[in-house]
Amino acid sequence: MNSLQHAREAASAARARYRQGFVAPTAGQAPGLTQCNMITLPREWAYDFLLFAQRNPQACPVLDVTEPGSHTTLLAEQADLRTDLPLYRVWRDGQLAEELSDVSHIWAQHTDLVSFLIGCSFTFETDLMHAGIDVRHISEGCNVPMYRSNRVCRPAGRLQGNMVVSMRPIAADRVAEAARITGRYPGVHGAPVHVGEPGLLGINDLANPDFGDAVTIRPGEIPVFWACGVTPQAVVMASRVPFAISHAPGHMFITDIPDSYYHV
Amino acid sequence: MNSLQHAREAASAARARYRQGFVAPTAGQAPGLTQCNMITLPREWAYDFLLFAQRNPQACPVLDVTEPGSHTTLLAEQADLRTDLPLYRVWRDGQLAEELSDVSHIWAQHTDLVSFLIGCSFTFETDLMHAGIDVRHISEGCNVPMYRSNRVCRPAGRLQGNMVVSMRPIAADRVAEAARITGRYPGVHGAPVHVGEPGLLGINDLANPDFGDAVTIRPGEIPVFWACGVTPQAVVMASRVPFAISHAPGHMFITDIPDSYYHV
Repeated sequence: MNSLQHAREAASAARARYRQGFVAPTAGQAPGLTQCNMITLPREWAYDFLLFAQRNPQACPVLDVTEPGSHTTLLAEQADLRTDLPLYRVWRDGQLAEELSDVSHIWAQHTDLVSFLIGCSFTFETDLMHAGIDVRHISEGCNVPMYRSNRVCRPAGRLQGNMVVSMRPIAADRVAEAARITGRYPGVHGAPVHVGEPGLLGINDLANPDFGDAVTIRPGEIPVFWACGVTPQAVVMASRVPFAISHAPGHMFITDIPDSYYHV
Repeated sequence: MNSLQHAREAASAARARYRQGFVAPTAGQAPGLTQCNMITLPREWAYDFLLFAQRNPQACPVLDVTEPGSHTTLLAEQADLRTDLPLYRVWRDGQLAEELSDVSHIWAQHTDLVSFLIGCSFTFETDLMHAGIDVRHISEGCNVPMYRSNRVCRPAGRLQGNMVVSMRPIAADRVAEAARITGRYPGVHGAPVHVGEPGLLGINDLANPDFGDAVTIRPGEIPVFWACGVTPQAVVMASRVPFAISHAPGHMFITDIPDSYYHV
């Protein structure tokens, strides 16, 4: 069995655990395989969202879109999107209504849900680590810190909102290399959108992220910001979308697609 | 005035000539600025097309989508999409109905047309030439040869069809470099989809392209195939779309966006 087959067995086993109710962040699971953000909307909102994603590709790089009513994806053909993520969020009128580990019964109340699977920066973190660049939230064993920024996304139809960014502290002499490495992955957020000066992004306190966990910033390190796949959740809130399901931040959909597939 | 400003003046002047009725292929016009394929559809077909593009990103890399009824784009804010391309095709029930240099009067019969502007391989040809790789249709002063392939696109809604490919003969010892250079431009078709063995793509006679012009293939050269932005026209035909407008092959929309913007 080759290493890709091994990784796919690990992915399948992880999805089976989540399907049985196990809840945990997915960082480090099935290494080498791409993980995705998910946002699920009624068909009536699908064009607006797909257009929003096209207009904001760094925040919303779409890797697959399901058929209306379907809960399967080419990204992992045996997976069930209603059960195989560890934790979901249900949104009503732009507000977080509940967090659940299985949304089958919610899904059953709708006939035409369309799911968008969106690239996740976990994909390029493996390459950063291989290059000897410390990925702080991994070395500290927590979730990546994410912040609502003041950067306004280009609106589409009824959807508008600001970009959510993730932050990784990078040593000043490695920032360019981190930009180069991640820039080769445009399908999973790509290059940083901002380097240093968090205040210019409207972020006043790096120690208080809006999502995820704060991480240590050491002397000589620069906070580097990437567009984040939690942006669609901020957009659902800002646009008061009547109904949506998403993954819970950090609790991603594990696919069968190797990270290398998204390397340019 | 810097070189980008010069290029934008050239683009503006070229669009003005086309607006006044001048008809000619756009290759070599306003060098350094991105040119686009265009496909314009009624709003009722827009989701199917945007989804088709998401599912077939090598053939249909979408650079902008207009608002319904609008004939302007962020890619060139002063341009008018009804007049500023040198030549258009009007499609009815999947058949080519007419070729026109101005479609304002056709556009006026519809209230909700949505235009999709799609990356064009002209963008990476400049880099190929800078690397000393001969781009044959440019050195021979003709249009790039394009072929309908047997490669089935992933369908979306009512849209289906096969990929159209462009072909450039490349010396065997430069094929890898051509793949590397073009691969850095995923927004404008990216890396080749096929190298050598045209028969495996269902192409039996390279001397008889389905669109554009045949070019010389010299001894020691390999035919290299890229996904082509004429694919949407093949899809309009195969799917018998009731109404569409497109550019005529080789007669592109010249934008104000530098090619380098799409370099990863």
